[in-house]
Amino acid sequence: MVEKRTPIQVGEAVKKVMSHSICGKQELVSINESYGRFLSEDLVATSDVPHFNRSPYDGFAIRSVDSAEASLSNPVEFEVVDHIGAGYVSNKEIGEFQAVRIMTGAQMPMNCDAVVMLELAKTSEKNGQPYMSIKRSYKPGDNVSFAGEDAKKGEVLVKRGTKINPGIQAMLATFGYKEVPVAKKPIIGLFATGTELLEVEDELQPGKIRNSNTHMIIAQIERSGAEVKYFGKLPDDFELCYESIESAIEEVDLLITTGGVSVGDFDYLPQIYKKLGADVLFNKVAMRPGSVTTVAHLDGKILFGLSGNPSACYVGFELFARPIIRTMLNCPKPHLRREKAVLEVDFPKANPFTRFVRSKLTITDGKLVAAPSGVDKSNIVMSLAGANSFIILPGGTRGYEAHTIVDVLLLEDHEGSEWPW
Amino acid sequence: MVEKRTPIQVGEAVKKVMSHSICGKQELVSINESYGRFLSEDLVATSDVPHFNRSPYDGFAIRSVDSAEASLSNPVEFEVVDHIGAGYVSNKEIGEFQAVRIMTGAQMPMNCDAVVMLELAKTSEKNGQPYMSIKRSYKPGDNVSFAGEDAKKGEVLVKRGTKINPGIQAMLATFGYKEVPVAKKPIIGLFATGTELLEVEDELQPGKIRNSNTHMIIAQIERSGAEVKYFGKLPDDFELCYESIESAIEEVDLLITTGGVSVGDFDYLPQIYKKLGADVLFNKVAMRPGSVTTVAHLDGKILFGLSGNPSACYVGFELFARPIIRTMLNCPKPHLRREKAVLEVDFPKANPFTRFVRSKLTITDGKLVAAPSGVDKSNIVMSLAGANSFIILPGGTRGYEAHTIVDVLLLEDHEGSEWPW
Repeated sequence: MVEKRTPIQVGEAVKKVMSHSICGKQELVSINESYGRFLSEDLVATSDVPHFNRSPYDGFAIRSVDSAEASLSNPVEFEVVDHIGAGYVSNKEIGEFQAVRIMTGAQMPMNCDAVVMLELAKTSEKNGQPYMSIKRSYKPGDNVSFAGEDAKKGEVLVKRGTKINPGIQAMLATFGYKEVPVAKKPIIGLFATGTELLEVEDELQPGKIRNSNTHMIIAQIERSGAEVKYFGKLPDDFELCYESIESAIEEVDLLITTGGVSVGDFDYLPQIYKKLGADVLFNKVAMRPGSVTTVAHLDGKILFGLSGNPSACYVGFELFARPIIRTMLNCPKPHLRREKAVLEVDFPKANPFTRFVRSKLTITDGKLVAAPSGVDKSNIVMSLAGANSFIILPGGTRGYEAHTIVDVLLLEDHEGSEWPW
Repeated sequence: MVEKRTPIQVGEAVKKVMSHSICGKQELVSINESYGRFLSEDLVATSDVPHFNRSPYDGFAIRSVDSAEASLSNPVEFEVVDHIGAGYVSNKEIGEFQAVRIMTGAQMPMNCDAVVMLELAKTSEKNGQPYMSIKRSYKPGDNVSFAGEDAKKGEVLVKRGTKINPGIQAMLATFGYKEVPVAKKPIIGLFATGTELLEVEDELQPGKIRNSNTHMIIAQIERSGAEVKYFGKLPDDFELCYESIESAIEEVDLLITTGGVSVGDFDYLPQIYKKLGADVLFNKVAMRPGSVTTVAHLDGKILFGLSGNPSACYVGFELFARPIIRTMLNCPKPHLRREKAVLEVDFPKANPFTRFVRSKLTITDGKLVAAPSGVDKSNIVMSLAGANSFIILPGGTRGYEAHTIVDVLLLEDHEGSEWPW
């Protein structure tokens, strides 16, 4: 007798998983290692930026009041009493018709309130003393970057849960974050199952294939922002299997197995969940590929039983495991980003269940266009290599025609969706 | 006297840099470390996939000829003579009206040419011997995945220069690439210049700011696929500066300096290039920010003199250094990816030079929409944190109105453009 399983809808299944969301931990890492990590606290301005009034150009700092009468027909001359580069501060008291030669980024001298750009000043010398003259007037504040103009002390500049990009690295340095508070990478345990699996270095043998799921999932885990702990292939023996899983759970935040969750004669995972006393949230989802995806919950840990078919395994990870990982990384939008796209080609296959088609999303004249990235069979690894998205084709249809507007889920994006279902 | 420099157009400047493209090297890395690297050879199928005829379902393998007479009113019975899971091979000789119980992924038994899905077979037992019967006929090949169906031995599956994603990891494993040929990461030397620069851990001082460019560029280098070698801040002394740069060049593939390239009184880079005997390709580009970006060539190495202003520095790296790095990584599309987008807001500022506006690209109803990510001044770090793109506003205009179609360059994308100018 084949076990009858009742499929649940994808959104319902994801909701069940998310209801067991686990709280992530945080840690401090050196700014040199923080690129690509997720902020675990808001990034707050620890000072004004700039923190002093400064010159945005190479030129001459003046008291604007002295320039009031300057015009094309009436140049006004200033005595240049000091000369400072960025990083230096003039300690001269600037008097009437005096100026300081100042370089980009240097602090404005006391009393000065405007900067004349170098190319608008005519320089000269009298008895070894430099002078410059100008032919227009300046208002207070002309060509001055004021303290706090870019950011005010105490302002929240970047929200927690944001992935650190090069611009954020610059901000962290600006505000003195030598140590950066980031989400600790969740540790994701991984087992492969399957008597048919050879290692990557093994010669092919009749009936056996190399284990590709493990390498694929390890990369998916890394892309999601977590860290993998790979325990190897589960032994064929049920008791050993059970013990391996039971002890692995202790060492990880989440546990993923690939294969062994179907209703086949050698699919032991359901029995293992039972013996562990785990609460099986679902063991059949109304989707293709990946309908056998099984998720269970045990003592605050979530066990993901992904299909052994590469594409089903891939989809199962992205739909169910990624959002839990991203939630642990504080992301407010933990799910794959959903957008609309134009279907580029006919997709004549009927869809009794919601179908996730591995697809290549391109942009034509500013519009998203999606096409399947390969033959759509769940055991075909090839279509995954070119996939940067899934086209979602809702169930209960007889196929789709080119130019239909479809929903797509983006795989290489780091924005995410709050809830795409 | 202010030195007069003649600006060249951005495309012309990039072309000059690219004419000095340097050949990248390659190395073999373990498949466990290859995720995110760039293939240095085409990925070729080393075997057929599958490499044997296999069952895509749990079911019974039969000789289709025996099912010819089966119908609803005439069930045909088969003796089940063997039982195999994935990874096992049946060595039974299958005769007339005999079947093998077979699990998903297992190799088809000799003589069998069709699979009956488990749920379509009625199982029974007679004297301890299992039987099954079916009520429809099967054609040769029904429910069989044939050898070579997914990939043929010798086929090129992924081109060199492609960034390795999780799907490609799966393929590498499938084809036994325990060691993966990837482009060696170019080593990018980096110096900061500027008397005003404090370290990230320093307290703020009057007139001084923390060095943000270094941390930003290190992340940009990493994002581009290269590796940084940071030499610290250049000393204030010209001779020491010169010697530091001269010796650093020996150790790296490209050398980047930030700051010191303008025409200010403390900008030493131009003199250093002169003393090194480097061929200055350009020292002024008709763009904002980053017009002072200077690139020089010396003995097969390229020296990038980026502006000290954070935004100018950021743009200079992405436009000029990134494509050289990606070329060394074998990418056929080494430049930032260019797409069309709708400008979301007015941009009233006049553009004497081509302007690269740090911007946030979003998608609305499947269409790209771009808006500036912050105040557009070249010294404003804040706008970089939210930037995932640059809006390109061509020079010689009086500003742009909302809803105009503009070109954008994507920063977080790994596709790239062959030539976006």
